[in-house]
Amino acid sequence: MFKAKVLIKRRPSILDPQGKAVEKGAMHLGLTNIKDTRIGKFIEFTVDTNNKQAAEKEVNDYCYKLLANPIMEDYEFTLEDVK
Amino acid sequence: MFKAKVLIKRRPSILDPQGKAVEKGAMHLGLTNIKDTRIGKFIEFTVDTNNKQAAEKEVNDYCYKLLANPIMEDYEFTLEDVK
Repeated sequence: MFKAKVLIKRRPSILDPQGKAVEKGAMHLGLTNIKDTRIGKFIEFTVDTNNKQAAEKEVNDYCYKLLANPIMEDYEFTLEDVK
Repeated sequence: MFKAKVLIKRRPSILDPQGKAVEKGAMHLGLTNIKDTRIGKFIEFTVDTNNKQAAEKEVNDYCYKLLANPIMEDYEFTLEDVK
């Protein structure tokens, strides 16, 4: 069994209005050194197989077809063997 | 200047209906080994100060007051010195 951790980020060239909005809130709270906030996703799950290659393929499919929007987001993942 | 990376996760005791829904989609795509999907946030930003202690305090405030919901989410962050 593998534990997968996926990070999904907007591509650097794509604006992040949600990040901008939250950062405005930080400014109002007096947190004036915070810059360039970008908000992405962090997704964890387990893959119930003992074949690492099959697990990688399944995670890739999951990311590409469901979790990320491949037009405007990039993803990366790690797989950790767990018992 | 520091680069901050924040991970925000729901507490283990809190249900994640969004994760459950996406996982159902995976099942329909034939990705049947995916289990226990939990969806959190990944947030990146820069902190424009050279004082690491001040940067940590600011990141903590940002997470606690704005980015996370401290009732049902946990957060962790890393700070990396950049020029």
